[in-house]
This record gives sequence, C-alpha cells and structure tokens, in this order.
Amino acid sequence: MSNIREESLKKHYEWKGKIETSVRVPVGSKEDLMLAYTPGVAEPCMAIHEDVSRSFELTRRWNTVPVITDGTAVLGLGDIGPEAGMPVMEGKCALFKEFGNVDAFPICIKSKDTEEIIRTIKLISGSFGGINLEDISAPRCFEIETRLKEELDIPVFHDDQHGTAIVTGAALINALKLAKKNIEDIRIVVNGAGAAGVAIAKYLMFLGAKNVIVCDSKGILCEGDPRLNSAKQELAKITNREHLQGGLAEAMKGADVFVGVSVANVVSQDMVRSMAEKPILFPCANPVPEILPELAKEAGAYIVGTGSSQYPNQINNVLVFPGLFRGAIDAKATTVNMEMMKAASIGIANCVKPEELKEDYILPFAFDKKAHKVVAEAVKEAAIRTGVIRQ
Amino acid sequence: MSNIREESLKKHYEWKGKIETSVRVPVGSKEDLMLAYTPGVAEPCMAIHEDVSRSFELTRRWNTVPVITDGTAVLGLGDIGPEAGMPVMEGKCALFKEFGNVDAFPICIKSKDTEEIIRTIKLISGSFGGINLEDISAPRCFEIETRLKEELDIPVFHDDQHGTAIVTGAALINALKLAKKNIEDIRIVVNGAGAAGVAIAKYLMFLGAKNVIVCDSKGILCEGDPRLNSAKQELAKITNREHLQGGLAEAMKGADVFVGVSVANVVSQDMVRSMAEKPILFPCANPVPEILPELAKEAGAYIVGTGSSQYPNQINNVLVFPGLFRGAIDAKATTVNMEMMKAASIGIANCVKPEELKEDYILPFAFDKKAHKVVAEAVKEAAIRTGVIRQ
Repeated sequence: MSNIREESLKKHYEWKGKIETSVRVPVGSKEDLMLAYTPGVAEPCMAIHEDVSRSFELTRRWNTVPVITDGTAVLGLGDIGPEAGMPVMEGKCALFKEFGNVDAFPICIKSKDTEEIIRTIKLISGSFGGINLEDISAPRCFEIETRLKEELDIPVFHDDQHGTAIVTGAALINALKLAKKNIEDIRIVVNGAGAAGVAIAKYLMFLGAKNVIVCDSKGILCEGDPRLNSAKQELAKITNREHLQGGLAEAMKGADVFVGVSVANVVSQDMVRSMAEKPILFPCANPVPEILPELAKEAGAYIVGTGSSQYPNQINNVLVFPGLFRGAIDAKATTVNMEMMKAASIGIANCVKPEELKEDYILPFAFDKKAHKVVAEAVKEAAIRTGVIRQ
Repeated sequence: MSNIREESLKKHYEWKGKIETSVRVPVGSKEDLMLAYTPGVAEPCMAIHEDVSRSFELTRRWNTVPVITDGTAVLGLGDIGPEAGMPVMEGKCALFKEFGNVDAFPICIKSKDTEEIIRTIKLISGSFGGINLEDISAPRCFEIETRLKEELDIPVFHDDQHGTAIVTGAALINALKLAKKNIEDIRIVVNGAGAAGVAIAKYLMFLGAKNVIVCDSKGILCEGDPRLNSAKQELAKITNREHLQGGLAEAMKGADVFVGVSVANVVSQDMVRSMAEKPILFPCANPVPEILPELAKEAGAYIVGTGSSQYPNQINNVLVFPGLFRGAIDAKATTVNMEMMKAASIGIANCVKPEELKEDYILPFAFDKKAHKVVAEAVKEAAIRTGVIRQ
C-alpha cells in the first residue's frame, strides 16, 4: 500500500495534472475566429439571451459537470483542506470522462459554511449541466445537497452518499440472489452514520428492506436518543423499529447483512459467527476494512465485498457516477431521483450474467466500459419514465 | 455580417460546445485506478495538505484559468445575462488553449453584486492558477479586479481592460515608428470611458504619454466635473492637464492619435481633418467603428486600425491573453503588473519586422502562433525581472 502511495505521488509530480481542456472546433484561421468567436458568436449569445434553456444546446454546458468539494471529508483523510482535495477531484473528473464521456471539472470551495457553499454553487450553476458534490463532511453535506436539489433544475448528486448507496444496493441485489433471501425479510446492519451510512440505510429501505439497524461509533441509533444530530434522529425514526439498544455486537446478532462505512477492524469474528445463516458482509472502510475478508470467511461469512480492489467483490462507486450522469444528461434530466438510482443498481447487478454469478463475483469490474453503458441506459430510461426531464 | 452570425449560430448548434475535457493519464485498468485514484491519490492529497503551494505541482491547477463573466457587458451586446455570455467565454477558452496552451474553463456567475462576485471568485480560486475576468460592466469591473488582485496571490486579469490596452499600446508603438513621433510629445484622445477606455488611457500614460484626453458620451472628462463617477474622476485628475472642455470635436483638434472604444460613426471626416499631421486613428468600436477606415483615409488619416478583421491593422486582444497567461504561468507569477503588460506590447510590436512595417501592416495577425510565443516569453521575462513570482 505504501508503495502504491509513493508511486502515485511520483506519478502526480510527473503528470502535472490528470485532465486538461481540449478544443473541439477549428479556431486557427481568421475565418474560424469569425464563426467561433467575434463577430459571429454574438448570434448564439442573443439566442440564449432570448431563451436561457438554449445554453444547453449552444455551449458545452449540457455535458459539463463540476466535481465540487470543500475538502472536509477527503477519502478517509478527513478535513485536509479544499486544495488538498483537488487530486481526488481531478481523478474523479478523469473517470467521469473515461467511463461516461462527461466533461467534468474540479472545483474546490474555500469555505466550510453551509450557506456560503450553497450560494457559491448556485451562483456558478449556469455554467453546468449537473453538479457532483464530493467529500463534504456530514451532516453539512445533507443540507447542501437537499437545498441544491430544491433550488436548482439540473441534476445534483452527492457521490459519497448516493454513489456508495447505489453500488452497495447492486452488490446486495446479487448477493441475495445467491443466498436465496428476499430483501424484505432480512435484517441489515449499517455501521457508520456519516454521509454514506445515512444514504445507504435510506436507499436500502427504498429498495424494500424493512429491518435496518444503523450504528455509529457510540452504538445503535435508537429513536429518542438525545445525543443524535438531526440527520441521525430522522434516521432513527425509520430504522430499528424494534428499538434495539446497545453496540455493534448487539446489532449484528442474527443479522443477515453487514454494511460497513466506518473504520478499520471494528467487526470481530465472533460478531460474524453471531449473524444469521449465510451472512453477507460488505466491510467497506478504506483503506483497511471493518474486518479482513479472510477473517470474515474463516468465521463463516458467505459473501464478502470490500472497497478495495485487492479482494474479490470490490464495491466501488466508480461503477456508478460516470454512467449515472451520462444517463441523466442524455435524458435531459432535471434531477436524480430514487427511481434513477434504483435503475442504476439493477443495471449494475445485471451486468453479472446469471451463469457467472458466484460468491466471489457479484459485481462487474469498475473499469468494465460495458457496465457504465448499461448504467447510463438504465438511468436515462428511468428519468424519462418518471418524467423528470427538461421539455 | 448577418451571414456570419447566422452561420455561427448554425455551427454552434452543430458543435454543441467548443471545448471539452480530456484525460491526460491512463485510467483504464485496475492498476491505473490505484495510482490516479484511490488508494494512491491519498499521498498527493496529504502532500498538498502539508504545503498548499504543492497544489500547483500535483494537479492541473498551475495551468488552469477560468474565464469568468457575469454577463453584464458581453461584446457590444450589453447586459444579456450570465448564461448568454457563455458562447463568448467558451470561444475565449478555445483561443486560450489554441494559442497559449492554457487550460481555460468558462464560468458565468449569476449575480451582479460586486461583493458577491468577488467573494465567489475568491472561494473557488484554489482550483486555479490565474483568473481571467471578462465582459463585466464598468465601473464594477474596476473594483472587482482591484480587490481580487489585492486579495489573491495568483494573476488576475480583466481582459476587456488590459488586453485591449496592451494590444492598443502595441499598435501605437509601431504606428509612432512610422509617423516618426515620440509618445511623450503627442496628444492622444481616447473616446469611451468604460472598462477599455479607462485602462487604455492609464496604460498609454504608463508607456510614456503625457497628454491624454478622455471623452465619454457627454464630452471631455475634466477634473472637478461633478457628473463623473469615481473611476472617471480619478482619470480626470491625471488626464487633460490643460483642463480642456467641450465635446469630441474640441478634443480632436490638433490631436495626433485617436483611440475609439465607444460606438459607431461618432467621428466625422472634419474631425480627422482637424487633427495634427500624420493622424493615427484606432476606431475600435464593434461591430461598426467610430469612423469607417475608407472615410478616415479619405480625410487624411495616416494609419487606421480597427477591431475588425475585415480591414488592415486589426487591433484584437486575441493577440494578448493567451501569451500573457502562458508567460505568467511559466514564470509562476503571482500577479500581472504594468511591466509585464509593457513587455507584451513591445513583444507584439516587434513581431512586425522593421522591413515589413508599413501603414497597413502594424500588427501581427491574431492567429500567428509565433506572436503568441513572443508575448509569452516577454511576459515571463518581465515577471521574473520584477520579482512577482512564487518561490
């Protein structure tokens, strides 16, 4: 791991940037300039002045998505500052282009103030066809995303929440096929109540889960607990309907599924042994999972997926965001709704053919371009079907 | 002209954007992802966290410049709205790349409030190696640029002001060589006291002009006139030291040089006839100049340059901004100062070889890549010489 990080640093110094701007039209001659720039360009300007929606047709706006962070929750590194988040944002932009042909652009905002971040994004939103929020810490990320979704008419997507939820949903769909269990009947424990944990819990319930228990570092979220922030209180009202109290060990007793978006090594082999038959574990903490896959397997885990490419079943939101935005853009979507997210999960799950599906192959690989195309088509279809599109 | 505008609109619908994002590094395989994205990317992130200046080395920040407008003074079209300015901003980005290899990116800000625009740009400035302001109306543009220059440590440049001033300065340098006059000895009339007019007047004085008279639509700016806004009052204190009063006709009597950044057809042949020997006229109003070159010539003009490519001597700031930012970036400049601007003017002027210099060829062509390279080298040298560089 440290070798990869050192090699990455060296490469970043060599690369001097992972993306750049390219020119799509001829601008090398006097005649070219007259069409692409002055005086000709006055006409598309006036066309947009008459009807702002034409900005999606006459400029690159339609295909352009900023990857925006305030640098407060970068990878597992925490609040390292806006500029320090840029290598991640740039990497994400490269993946957006490579796998979704989306023109993404990294923007870091030098403020941690929720209202100021919302205002800044709104003020520059006229340049973009959608907004991808990234690595903004909870609970501010919830307010920022909710408000922007309400106040903008382009797709707004916080990848740490929903990208993670969608790919986890895809993994769960296929794992349950193998375990021959129904999502309605199972108990799911989500460990971690940050951006990803909250979104995963809500999303799995949208997919049909009736019995979800969420834990944070202090234990099980239970309705009425005064220590909970507003996002957690809201979650405690719809999860843990048995009002279970205690720690992670109590939560995992009899559970069918464990989803970890927390920290390294908090799940013991005894906890795995206490789970229901054919336990499914997605310990996705980065870089070290909640329990190492080999230990989980040894303790009886049926299926294990992690965030790492070093093990089988990598649960990686790279599978989601390029295709999701490609589909939303192609549909001229005005938002990203739950149906579009569900379509993405099912699309990803279906990329693994029934005859190939097995315990250590429940998801397509992140760099499988076919999978991204499937996601795009599924999301586009769902956006059109649910009518959330520009006319 | 109307044919060009119609053709341009058609092309813009076909193009669906004049720039796009490209990926500079391999991201197609598992191993690629581990270096360009997680887990490797954590290391460049932490390197920047330790020293923010490394963001210029480990990301594309160093070469990335937003072209930012609020849409209030787009071309000669006026306040057409932020989104409607995007075709110009995008065209400019294409030129930045084509002629300066600068990765420019269009951003429109949906606010006309000076403080809000300043704040927004400051908040996103960590993503960029410099800031190009564009088509922001006077007098707000002066405050916005001045404040950003004070408060940011990357080059900030309002092209409508200084790009225009620099290329006008280059044209004047060569015109005066032909007319065998010294800039210190001549009278210059600048018609128009918006962003460009104010900047041109100040800049020509920096180049050595002692006798500059500025007119706005009401007439000559004269110290103490209560109708003047603060930018004009400041200008009236350093120009028109003879305290001349009256209109454009009075200003032009005996003048050696006329620079127009105002509106069509406000200069008559009689005004040209009233000028000093070998009159030099740069009527740059767009799309129709203050006086048509053929009329000016007929009335005795020695040299005429306009903003249009339809006539000889096009005074086009496309000659300036790509090379200026290229040079500033290559020098790791923290600002754009007057010496860098002067170096750009002299560089542009020197692109016309002495043996080629004549009345209808005083400037290189805007699409002459050699000229842009000369500007870049001159600006870089001046930045280093004046010490305005990151250590």
